Amino acid sequence: MDGIVLLAHGARDAKWAEPFASIARQMRELAPQRPVTLAFLELMLPDLLTAAAQLAAAGCTRITVVPLFLGAGGHVREDVPRLVAQAARQLPAVHVTCTLAIGESEHVTRAIAAAALTLAGCDPTPR
Amino acid sequence: MDGIVLLAHGARDAKWAEPFASIARQMRELAPQRPVTLAFLELMLPDLLTAAAQLAAAGCTRITVVPLFLGAGGHVREDVPRLVAQAARQLPAVHVTCTLAIGESEHVTRAIAAAALTLAGCDPTPR
Repeated sequence: MDGIVLLAHGARDAKWAEPFASIARQMRELAPQRPVTLAFLELMLPDLLTAAAQLAAAGCTRITVVPLFLGAGGHVREDVPRLVAQAARQLPAVHVTCTLAIGESEHVTRAIAAAALTLAGCDPTPR
Repeated sequence: MDGIVLLAHGARDAKWAEPFASIARQMRELAPQRPVTLAFLELMLPDLLTAAAQLAAAGCTRITVVPLFLGAGGHVREDVPRLVAQAARQLPAVHVTCTLAIGESEHVTRAIAAAALTLAGCDPTPR
């Protein structure tokens, strides 16, 4: 079984995570066969190692980590790869990999550009 | 003229801002008549007050601030409204307003959910 960990930053404020929980919910609706779980880099739980271990315990032999970060700075380029490598070492029977961050997906930046124009009261011409 | 300020968090790493610059570029392509500028809460320049003053100096009489934040925590619920109110006081001839954060747009969370599945090698059924 293939599982997905959505890795977000985390914050002190519990309401911060709501959009990320909504993304996880929508993914489960779109792909009910794929276990999807949220994990956080800091300030919120579970962390990546715990979430990956839970998916492994539930029978996942492949785990894909998707970084839910728009900006591609130190977290995405240093902390995330380090944690993914640590999870892979800790779960030798599981194939743990990491994708690009969502901010590197043109589909995502295009959707945000269109949504920002709509929020600002300017409906973009569909292209 | 109506202008838009995209307000992002900011980071130490210059590469961090690339997805945000790409969003601004795509908005200018979709709506060339609307001046769009990026501003940052911390660690990067310009700040919101500077960006809003530049749009006002360029002739904007309305400025809409769109917070480019996924998580809706303290930054979105406290810092951003405070800065927007400050910009409105500083530019009394300009109508300065603020929209929901992009993470509160279902269009955005749906696009991220679909992109995350695609990144994880699982093409969701289109709905």
